Amino acid sequence: MKYVFSECVNSFRSSAIRDLMSLATRNDIISFAGGMPGNELLPVEEMRQIAENLTRAEWEEALQYGQTGGNPSFIAELKNWLKKRNFPVEKNELIITTGSLQALNIIGKLFINPNDVVLTENPVFIGGVSAFLSYQAKIVGVDLDSNGIDIQQLTEAVKPARANNYSPLQIKPKLLYIEPNFHNPAGLVYSRERREKLLETMRGTEIPIIEDDAYGELWFDEESLRTSRPMKTWADSEMEQQILYVGSFSKIMSPGMRLAWALVPKQVYDKMSICKQSIDACPPTFSQVFAQKFMESGQMDTYILKIREIYRNRRDYMLAAIEKYFPSQATFVKPQGGFYLWVKMPDGIDEEVLFKKVVEQGAVFVLGAVFHPQAKKNGYIRISYSNTPEEQIEKGIKIIGDCLKELKPES
Amino acid sequence: MKYVFSECVNSFRSSAIRDLMSLATRNDIISFAGGMPGNELLPVEEMRQIAENLTRAEWEEALQYGQTGGNPSFIAELKNWLKKRNFPVEKNELIITTGSLQALNIIGKLFINPNDVVLTENPVFIGGVSAFLSYQAKIVGVDLDSNGIDIQQLTEAVKPARANNYSPLQIKPKLLYIEPNFHNPAGLVYSRERREKLLETMRGTEIPIIEDDAYGELWFDEESLRTSRPMKTWADSEMEQQILYVGSFSKIMSPGMRLAWALVPKQVYDKMSICKQSIDACPPTFSQVFAQKFMESGQMDTYILKIREIYRNRRDYMLAAIEKYFPSQATFVKPQGGFYLWVKMPDGIDEEVLFKKVVEQGAVFVLGAVFHPQAKKNGYIRISYSNTPEEQIEKGIKIIGDCLKELKPES
Repeated sequence: MKYVFSECVNSFRSSAIRDLMSLATRNDIISFAGGMPGNELLPVEEMRQIAENLTRAEWEEALQYGQTGGNPSFIAELKNWLKKRNFPVEKNELIITTGSLQALNIIGKLFINPNDVVLTENPVFIGGVSAFLSYQAKIVGVDLDSNGIDIQQLTEAVKPARANNYSPLQIKPKLLYIEPNFHNPAGLVYSRERREKLLETMRGTEIPIIEDDAYGELWFDEESLRTSRPMKTWADSEMEQQILYVGSFSKIMSPGMRLAWALVPKQVYDKMSICKQSIDACPPTFSQVFAQKFMESGQMDTYILKIREIYRNRRDYMLAAIEKYFPSQATFVKPQGGFYLWVKMPDGIDEEVLFKKVVEQGAVFVLGAVFHPQAKKNGYIRISYSNTPEEQIEKGIKIIGDCLKELKPES
Repeated sequence: MKYVFSECVNSFRSSAIRDLMSLATRNDIISFAGGMPGNELLPVEEMRQIAENLTRAEWEEALQYGQTGGNPSFIAELKNWLKKRNFPVEKNELIITTGSLQALNIIGKLFINPNDVVLTENPVFIGGVSAFLSYQAKIVGVDLDSNGIDIQQLTEAVKPARANNYSPLQIKPKLLYIEPNFHNPAGLVYSRERREKLLETMRGTEIPIIEDDAYGELWFDEESLRTSRPMKTWADSEMEQQILYVGSFSKIMSPGMRLAWALVPKQVYDKMSICKQSIDACPPTFSQVFAQKFMESGQMDTYILKIREIYRNRRDYMLAAIEKYFPSQATFVKPQGGFYLWVKMPDGIDEEVLFKKVVEQGAVFVLGAVFHPQAKKNGYIRISYSNTPEEQIEKGIKIIGDCLKELKPES
């Protein structure tokens, strides 16, 4: 049998995500590879209790088909939660998706024709890139500095969309995809000033901005809370309608439940929900019923308070270990929230050589190339502290530090 | 803000599925519209018990990310179950999908370029059509008779793929999509002879055959069990590799868990799993852990035995009511399994007029046009007995029968 695959199959990104996943879940080594909540932090007792208390009618709802855009009572609960955070829930529609990757995928399908340009950050969340590539997009990366996306590069990239004498030879980007809060992998949070400049740069371009906020709730102090306020909550009404906001339960409840949401203008919602009908009919109702109870009871808010503190402690623990074991030439932006440390290799260190050495010694991280829009080697590594208990952090960081020093003894 | 959607958005089928869903879940009328298990039949007590007995480690697995193609232990359990049914699990790979619609969608993405022809049955499961349309396929319907797909029409349709002197002007179909068991909406089961002829017709065409078997476990007697044996289990090895088999937990456990599977050759599996990585990362692990326990404990097999009998009783109940209340000119194939009765309207009855009348009187079914590949009116209605308790069946069928007689008094 000879299979004749479609054109789009060639655009699939290879198995980088799968490799990442299998690295992240190996038991025999200390893993800083996973972009996942700590196993021991998952709300097991809360979910067990919810299961015990569900009524027959609630179980039936959990096991039956639901509506394409999500169960109405769950949506109502999530709307309340978003309202408290100043999201414009009345001027937009809320759709529940099967994980935030599905929201990115559907948005990709809605907007991308083959060879369309999608602007992303560099480095960038690999899942988003793979979703856009699967619709044969051309990915153009815009560099990040410690305050966010490079405005000069962005201005240049959107020029074809701003020029009064728009030439058909110029390629107008179709989408801008960004993750301003506690970035995966870069660990940084966009400054307020950078957000404002970004909005001014995008104004009038009519390029939808995907604001991916998977880590938004995981700020570590009052200042990062203020800084991290999503643009969707404070942009003026013209710009607010240009933003397609994506949020997720994966980091504040459970990734295994596959629940996320998009808050988008009605016109986009209508297309998204028709598209979702042809993808998986409805998000898992089983998960939605549990998630609704978790929110209603206030348990989710309590849970978020708890994990914020634990992740902050793990960050501190890791920073202390790095201070102790890493050569000072390995630099990074101190994370103000989220899961990740994005470390620039000292001059003369090849991260691929380092990687092999570290794995031999019993620890693992992710190579920076995985997060490059074109998968190019870039002299960075991503170290995650989210799923590594405190007692293992020091041990693992010492392994990486020793390997770094061995590869390049300090002069 | 002016949104510039992609070309593919125009190919989305309008909101027919959503309309169907909202019809099927209205409480104020007797519904024969839903293609769903009976609410009161869902395995609530079993799931409650499973939840009670999960260990901490199992809860953690349920709440954490899993592998793209499904959790290994769940896949192993499902493989055992499929082996007992003679599926060639060693010569193929098994991928877990987020509902069977997702399997159809991914297969569509893998094979369809814009304007490619996909052969389907007429009538056809609307979800499959919407998935293929979303990749801009041209749908060509092949009629069903009471024994299955029309072989003469099928032979004609695959001619371009068989001709020795293949002309680039002829369009070779890219896929054949069929549902041989307890068809939605046609209610029929393909005869063994028809299955054999189908395979001979497809042999050498190299057109992948999607064998959708969502209702396969719901046979009502020994004869329909024999007839309904999936082609994937008995085709010779050449044809077996041409079959992409899709199964689902929606009708034998729970639709709300969104779990299904595809058993496909390795080459197709590899592409499917990379594609799935860009769609939703992994199927819900929360559901997989519960489903695994449901299978392991033998509860699923017991459950299937129970619901087979209940659905058969509901069918008998409905047939008796139809005998009593319908005019004899309303004809249909007696379902040997599954959920549906596909009723041809007597001459002179307009099903749209009937529909309005019946809804006014407090019952509802689905118009046949919903299942036409081009959504054309076809003189049929679909009546489902799966989610209507016995005591309501007679009342609802009487409403439809009375309306039929009122529209065309018997001479």
